[in-house]
Amino acid sequence: MQEATLRQLLQRFRKGKLSEHQFLQRLKTLPFEDLEIANIDYHRALRKGFPEIIYGEGKSANDVKLIVSKMLKKKLPVVITRVTSEHIAVLKKFSPVQHFEKARISTINYSEPHKRKGKIIVVSAGTSDISVAEEAAVTAELLGSNVERLYDVGVAGIHRLLQRVNIFHNAHCVICVAGMEGALPSVVGGIVSCPVIAVPTSIGYGASFQGIAALLAMLNSCSVGISVVNIDNGFGAGYQAHIINFQSTVVSDD
Amino acid sequence: MQEATLRQLLQRFRKGKLSEHQFLQRLKTLPFEDLEIANIDYHRALRKGFPEIIYGEGKSANDVKLIVSKMLKKKLPVVITRVTSEHIAVLKKFSPVQHFEKARISTINYSEPHKRKGKIIVVSAGTSDISVAEEAAVTAELLGSNVERLYDVGVAGIHRLLQRVNIFHNAHCVICVAGMEGALPSVVGGIVSCPVIAVPTSIGYGASFQGIAALLAMLNSCSVGISVVNIDNGFGAGYQAHIINFQSTVVSDD
Amino acid sequence: MQEATLRQLLQRFRKGKLSEHQFLQRLKTLPFEDLEIANIDYHRALRKGFPEIIYGEGKSANDVKLIVSKMLKKKLPVVITRVTSEHIAVLKKFSPVQHFEKARISTINYSEPHKRKGKIIVVSAGTSDISVAEEAAVTAELLGSNVERLYDVGVAGIHRLLQRVNIFHNAHCVICVAGMEGALPSVVGGIVSCPVIAVPTSIGYGASFQGIAALLAMLNSCSVGISVVNIDNGFGAGYQAHIINFQSTVVSDD
Amino acid sequence: MQEATLRQLLQRFRKGKLSEHQFLQRLKTLPFEDLEIANIDYHRALRKGFPEIIYGEGKSANDVKLIVSKMLKKKLPVVITRVTSEHIAVLKKFSPVQHFEKARISTINYSEPHKRKGKIIVVSAGTSDISVAEEAAVTAELLGSNVERLYDVGVAGIHRLLQRVNIFHNAHCVICVAGMEGALPSVVGGIVSCPVIAVPTSIGYGASFQGIAALLAMLNSCSVGISVVNIDNGFGAGYQAHIINFQSTVVSDD
Amino acid sequence: MQEATLRQLLQRFRKGKLSEHQFLQRLKTLPFEDLEIANIDYHRALRKGFPEIIYGEGKSANDVKLIVSKMLKKKLPVVITRVTSEHIAVLKKFSPVQHFEKARISTINYSEPHKRKGKIIVVSAGTSDISVAEEAAVTAELLGSNVERLYDVGVAGIHRLLQRVNIFHNAHCVICVAGMEGALPSVVGGIVSCPVIAVPTSIGYGASFQGIAALLAMLNSCSVGISVVNIDNGFGAGYQAHIINFQSTVVSDD
Amino acid sequence: MQEATLRQLLQRFRKGKLSEHQFLQRLKTLPFEDLEIANIDYHRALRKGFPEIIYGEGKSANDVKLIVSKMLKKKLPVVITRVTSEHIAVLKKFSPVQHFEKARISTINYSEPHKRKGKIIVVSAGTSDISVAEEAAVTAELLGSNVERLYDVGVAGIHRLLQRVNIFHNAHCVICVAGMEGALPSVVGGIVSCPVIAVPTSIGYGASFQGIAALLAMLNSCSVGISVVNIDNGFGAGYQAHIINFQSTVVSDD
Amino acid sequence: MQEATLRQLLQRFRKGKLSEHQFLQRLKTLPFEDLEIANIDYHRALRKGFPEIIYGEGKSANDVKLIVSKMLKKKLPVVITRVTSEHIAVLKKFSPVQHFEKARISTINYSEPHKRKGKIIVVSAGTSDISVAEEAAVTAELLGSNVERLYDVGVAGIHRLLQRVNIFHNAHCVICVAGMEGALPSVVGGIVSCPVIAVPTSIGYGASFQGIAALLAMLNSCSVGISVVNIDNGFGAGYQAHIINFQSTVVSDD
Amino acid sequence: MQEATLRQLLQRFRKGKLSEHQFLQRLKTLPFEDLEIANIDYHRALRKGFPEIIYGEGKSANDVKLIVSKMLKKKLPVVITRVTSEHIAVLKKFSPVQHFEKARISTINYSEPHKRKGKIIVVSAGTSDISVAEEAAVTAELLGSNVERLYDVGVAGIHRLLQRVNIFHNAHCVICVAGMEGALPSVVGGIVSCPVIAVPTSIGYGASFQGIAALLAMLNSCSVGISVVNIDNGFGAGYQAHIINFQSTVVSDD
Repeated sequence: MQEATLRQLLQRFRKGKLSEHQFLQRLKTLPFEDLEIANIDYHRALRKGFPEIIYGEGKSANDVKLIVSKMLKKKLPVVITRVTSEHIAVLKKFSPVQHFEKARISTINYSEPHKRKGKIIVVSAGTSDISVAEEAAVTAELLGSNVERLYDVGVAGIHRLLQRVNIFHNAHCVICVAGMEGALPSVVGGIVSCPVIAVPTSIGYGASFQGIAALLAMLNSCSVGISVVNIDNGFGAGYQAHIINFQSTVVSDD
Repeated sequence: MQEATLRQLLQRFRKGKLSEHQFLQRLKTLPFEDLEIANIDYHRALRKGFPEIIYGEGKSANDVKLIVSKMLKKKLPVVITRVTSEHIAVLKKFSPVQHFEKARISTINYSEPHKRKGKIIVVSAGTSDISVAEEAAVTAELLGSNVERLYDVGVAGIHRLLQRVNIFHNAHCVICVAGMEGALPSVVGGIVSCPVIAVPTSIGYGASFQGIAALLAMLNSCSVGISVVNIDNGFGAGYQAHIINFQSTVVSDD
Repeated sequence: MQEATLRQLLQRFRKGKLSEHQFLQRLKTLPFEDLEIANIDYHRALRKGFPEIIYGEGKSANDVKLIVSKMLKKKLPVVITRVTSEHIAVLKKFSPVQHFEKARISTINYSEPHKRKGKIIVVSAGTSDISVAEEAAVTAELLGSNVERLYDVGVAGIHRLLQRVNIFHNAHCVICVAGMEGALPSVVGGIVSCPVIAVPTSIGYGASFQGIAALLAMLNSCSVGISVVNIDNGFGAGYQAHIINFQSTVVSDD
Repeated sequence: MQEATLRQLLQRFRKGKLSEHQFLQRLKTLPFEDLEIANIDYHRALRKGFPEIIYGEGKSANDVKLIVSKMLKKKLPVVITRVTSEHIAVLKKFSPVQHFEKARISTINYSEPHKRKGKIIVVSAGTSDISVAEEAAVTAELLGSNVERLYDVGVAGIHRLLQRVNIFHNAHCVICVAGMEGALPSVVGGIVSCPVIAVPTSIGYGASFQGIAALLAMLNSCSVGISVVNIDNGFGAGYQAHIINFQSTVVSDD
Repeated sequence: MQEATLRQLLQRFRKGKLSEHQFLQRLKTLPFEDLEIANIDYHRALRKGFPEIIYGEGKSANDVKLIVSKMLKKKLPVVITRVTSEHIAVLKKFSPVQHFEKARISTINYSEPHKRKGKIIVVSAGTSDISVAEEAAVTAELLGSNVERLYDVGVAGIHRLLQRVNIFHNAHCVICVAGMEGALPSVVGGIVSCPVIAVPTSIGYGASFQGIAALLAMLNSCSVGISVVNIDNGFGAGYQAHIINFQSTVVSDD
Repeated sequence: MQEATLRQLLQRFRKGKLSEHQFLQRLKTLPFEDLEIANIDYHRALRKGFPEIIYGEGKSANDVKLIVSKMLKKKLPVVITRVTSEHIAVLKKFSPVQHFEKARISTINYSEPHKRKGKIIVVSAGTSDISVAEEAAVTAELLGSNVERLYDVGVAGIHRLLQRVNIFHNAHCVICVAGMEGALPSVVGGIVSCPVIAVPTSIGYGASFQGIAALLAMLNSCSVGISVVNIDNGFGAGYQAHIINFQSTVVSDD
Repeated sequence: MQEATLRQLLQRFRKGKLSEHQFLQRLKTLPFEDLEIANIDYHRALRKGFPEIIYGEGKSANDVKLIVSKMLKKKLPVVITRVTSEHIAVLKKFSPVQHFEKARISTINYSEPHKRKGKIIVVSAGTSDISVAEEAAVTAELLGSNVERLYDVGVAGIHRLLQRVNIFHNAHCVICVAGMEGALPSVVGGIVSCPVIAVPTSIGYGASFQGIAALLAMLNSCSVGISVVNIDNGFGAGYQAHIINFQSTVVSDD
Repeated sequence: MQEATLRQLLQRFRKGKLSEHQFLQRLKTLPFEDLEIANIDYHRALRKGFPEIIYGEGKSANDVKLIVSKMLKKKLPVVITRVTSEHIAVLKKFSPVQHFEKARISTINYSEPHKRKGKIIVVSAGTSDISVAEEAAVTAELLGSNVERLYDVGVAGIHRLLQRVNIFHNAHCVICVAGMEGALPSVVGGIVSCPVIAVPTSIGYGASFQGIAALLAMLNSCSVGISVVNIDNGFGAGYQAHIINFQSTVVSDD
């Protein structure tokens, strides 16, 4: 669209209908985006086919209805995180819904990449952390990454983790999900050599302060190779792990 | 002294110089402490011979001089924690000083118990935590406990801890000293069966907030059998570990 | 089980069916845990018979149902803390339930140790703290410790505590439960000679910040011999007090 | 001054040189203060003779020099709190200085009220709190209150306080100074019936957070009759205690 | 009771049935409280007739029922703060209830002192603060103080306060209730000469942090003569204001 | 009214019925406000016609009913922010209600200024911030400012903002509404030359701490020309933007 | 420069040396800024002549030397805030320095606008706040605004402010500087009708937390028309006040 | 070594010198690590040649001397971060030192990988952030990654970033360093498609709280693909970026 406008301007300029000065004036007042898009086009291509994600938490069933309705009209695939049962009831009225219960993620008209690539490990400390862990795992899977899960291996029973240490072999990224004291990423970070994305959860009570204790522990980890996302941000961790995994496998797998 | 007063009152009462009413009146206005001491005497006996501890931090060399001077006049042994080089210069003018450099503890005229008892393990995460760990260890030793040290076994290299796991055998208490993410007590608490006293240190930077991150992690430990003392409170941990160790060994060792 | 495998390997090695190299290879790939267990076996024995504890808070009735169902199939005794009336309704469908109302603890198929040992004192400041105090007391009792309770002896009426000071005689551990300003452990710590486990509670309003005021007060206690657990963590205090009490009495009582 | 202006206006109005309208216009634009002073005059009288207090902390020796110089020119008495040795060196150049070392207060040309009245008790928990306690005590004394001191009676040795409980008899106000866990006001508040002003100090380390722990404890006291001033604000406590004491004694003593 | 025991001991001692040593032994093991009460008796007398206050917040209707039932059996008057409609329903089943709606205080069988004394002013900043202000005012009135109210005079319309400044004349204490920025006590403290008790309220939103903003403002007031109670603690302010007012009027009014 | 009193006094003074002294005495005791109003009259005129705003949040339907009833009796226009559906139900019983749904603002009997003036831009980062943005926008419009909206231009898609940068031309004030990381004002502040009022919202989760993250970001903006209002305070931003806009246009537009 | 490139491209396109496609390709890869500048040019013009401000705090004398050296080579005027004596020593080596001592601002080669416009009032609460107040005032003056100062009018002596209330007449912006409880903006905001920029200062101690108390108070002000800048950010306040004042006067004064 | 011991045991077992029981006993007591190493060997190989990093901050010159002395004796290369001039003086006595001044990193006997691989972009917001940015950049370079720097492109002048947007093409990781409001990662995250590691710095004042404002902003970023390290942790960011970059290039570049 914007390009068409530009071409018209150029034609008019070449034909002498616009002076050089006039052409430059018009150019300067053209909307910004389209030129700017040109510069960053390369990564848009990369993201192509990836659906826009709707963050469901705090949205009313009505909000979700409106957003999904618009997207489906544009033939866009729909992926919603933090879905509630009210959201799902609404979604089902549109179209068949693929629902990942523990991950609280639902999709409509979404086709996963044909073949998942690479290897991401999602480790979680306690059974209560599994919901966030699944949000991370399913996110990465929907984006096209292979994911292996290693749940309930908290540091209070460190042997549970250590006896399965071979699982980390060949992984391109580890997502480490833990609440309470948030110590798991430090232990895992000492064992693996690939990047670790740490996800503090709000699991705990009293001085856990809804995940602050775990967040601080992870930011202060004495292990190297660890970075941290927001409390309960399974989606963010899954997304970043996917792009790390993806760019680590794109050459070898193709 | 107080007892002497009481005996006088009783003599005067028996001799009829004080009526029953007068005696009771006098009794009610006697200083409180001495009667109260009677009730809690049992534990005073236990503590007998244990010196009063001076907390040196923030005290001027002059403050220390005054306090030590008074104690030595009363023939009391002197133990000072958090001593600075200025303090030591002052102390040396009084009497020969026994100084524990890493622990920042000095003593004058202090005789340790003849034979140390039981077994306390002091574990520390990083080399920077050793000062606090030594404060705990030396405190417990001065009080009469056997102490074994296991330093620099942070969770980022968990194998360093695990390969020496036998050290915990027969321990009556473990003191776990760690800064940064404070994860060590959770791992140790999952391995040992005796009580663990966790000591957060102010080692770290940025979001460690001078030990808050470690403190919160320890309070939220998913391992059982752990309790926590104040940031950098090596003395407090050493003291409590000693009384736990002492009462666990008093029967068997005597 | 694991040992059986090892013995088979050794037989095959001795018979020449496995080369030294092959034997070593197999050894290295054996699950980690079982070897590790060997090292820490001593304390497992100690814990034998002690049931796994389920933390009920935040778990749905359905979660509890699933967990308990699995445990009962394995003939494991069940102990749940922070039970709600919904949890109890579920539990009752399985088997007769022993319920401790104030402590919010329920058990199924759980047999307490035949004879309780030693002596733990649970002290609480206000009537609102009793629920946490009971969680501590019942936990220690279920594990096999004698417990005496001294409730509603807050520091605003210090004589209530002092007049019953004899109760602390012969105690191996004191659990001190307080909300609001959390001053009780400091007073108790000045009176007794055994270890004090301080439990801040979330009781209070305004600047109590759900137990932070009490937590900070306890961490900063000017009394020695005190360590602290998380806010409202009656279970943790009861557990640690029990192991302190247990190892202090194991020789003398047997 | 202002009144003179008003009288002129009235004269001119009476003489017809100002219309009613003009008079009202002028009245509305008169400076505010002088009319307002009329309303609150009663309490100014009460404060008469009380010197303006200079808060020395953070002020350079030069700042102090300028302020004091101005005050002395106006024949005003000078009282400075938080004086440093640099301040005192400056002060001595003006005039003889009365210096209260522990309280860090100095005065020039200041005459205390002839006879001190009533009774304030200043209680402090630890030896390190004495500086703040003295600031409170000396402030109240300079203002004209009788003050009795009861220092180093922290709650870790509660008998030290209880044995001297008679001191509180007839007191009109108690100032309670404590750092660390700040528990002293709660105990004192349970013993006395007069108002208690609690002063948290910044004494402590780690999780004392420069007095926050003590501040929170005091705000959450379970004793009634307690209110709190800012951390280390000995002056503020001494001032308020004085006005409470003063108005409680003004009738009976005169 | 205790005194009777003592008299018996004295009789037996005088008759020679107890040696001096035996008498002293018995004395030391007597319960603590009764002797201690002797020392602090003077203030108990002062408080005589004052009912025990029940803090209703967070208590179930059943809790209240039990407590009130016990008190009424002992013929004690009942005063409950922070009553809910559920509490009142329960209370009405016992006896006629006097209810102060805005103050959320109810009484049963409680007779106020015949004649209220002195003068307390309760000032509040906004209409939303009135509930806390009334809690303070009614508390002081029930205890026997005269109270005058000056509501809705926040600093955003400072003239509302200033035009009624005469109300402070002769007051013995001002209670200043404010949420949001908590600036009112600073302004009032600059106007009056009697003590000011500042009460931060949890009124506000966002960065008011449930009253922390107001609390901090009040603790940092640049006016002298101000001390602070916990957030929303109308009762505590009313109580302390009463004892300040009471001791300021006891001589002149009698 | 007050002026009438003054005129009477003046008449009586002129007639000699009041001496100069008597006149001055009377003057000093006149209510404060009315004189004070004289001084600040100029801005009252400016505000004339502007309705008093009722902050609806936390108010019961009954509270609102009472307040509105009083205002309508005085023929005052009514504007309520943060209205709930319960409030609206009550309002509708009085009179026809103009309701701005997204802004959560309702008015009764309120006539907007005939012609809106100047230009304010309201920019918001995410769709969830729109409610606060609308509160700001509608407030400014009701007060008489022209407002243009630019919503959903968060910094994660900076081109959305940049392509519409011309909208800022000629604006007198920009209101920038953002939750989460609150980065939008910094970007906008770098682009525009008029004042920017930043409004942090409570949108976010985990470490957003109900808007604290956004608030801190905005206070620390590296762009100049930015100031900040309380979290979610759309009304405050709209009000201040209006007065900035108004005084920037009052000359040129008239 | 960029425009020259564009003109060349256009010439080559018109001459047929570049196809339309080639032209568009080149256009898309042109640097971003220059086109973008076109869009926002209008405000650059406005800022013309305004020097870049260097924030001196934390910069070494050497850093300042390097930066200033570069600027002077480009014939740019230099304005530095938060200058130290070390900075000034360096500056003096370059060129004559204009130094504003209290404001801690220095300039080199800087010519103020010929005639200052409009009216800004800078109000400060305490003498210790004057440094920040002067930073604000001098900033606004250097930018070309008339500034009047009203210092030391804290709310503890509210009459000092009220008696000079006429100063606010005709002001286009008030800057309100206060530390400690930060109450001044609320009072001022209730008096004036122009925008108020509130500047919290780090003046205070204890629970002022280096300005947090004042910051929170200002964010929660119950007065309307107030927005807030960072703690001690006198420069930011002066800058924003200037642009508010400037756009309010540009029409009327020219 | 450990394997040699095992082989000996096996030989002795095969020869009948050890019974099966004896063999198993010995096996169980063997150090833990060596078996465990077998499992995680794969990643050790990967890290081979990478030097141990010494964190210099807070270490005395003497500490550094001891550590470096030990490492050099073992022929280990030395890399120290946060070196001070005192450290460097010590280092120079050992051996020639390669020093990166802005990055505050020094090395001895360290040989970088022959050829740097891949592409990391280090972006920083302000000139004061460059030290942390350089720590990240030099760390990644020393480990073998190509690094490009893009400094001083804060969001207040967003065009500086946008005009150089092409630099991100083909990058495998972006490190984003910013203090104050920490907004840069959100903008960058919206432009690039590779992972972004955000590094908050302690640059700022007032409500930046030594980097907390920036940390919170980054954790709450509305852009996807971002994770965060501790405040000022340039080393951690450089390390993680390197391993992400390394595994993304290992196939294609070899």
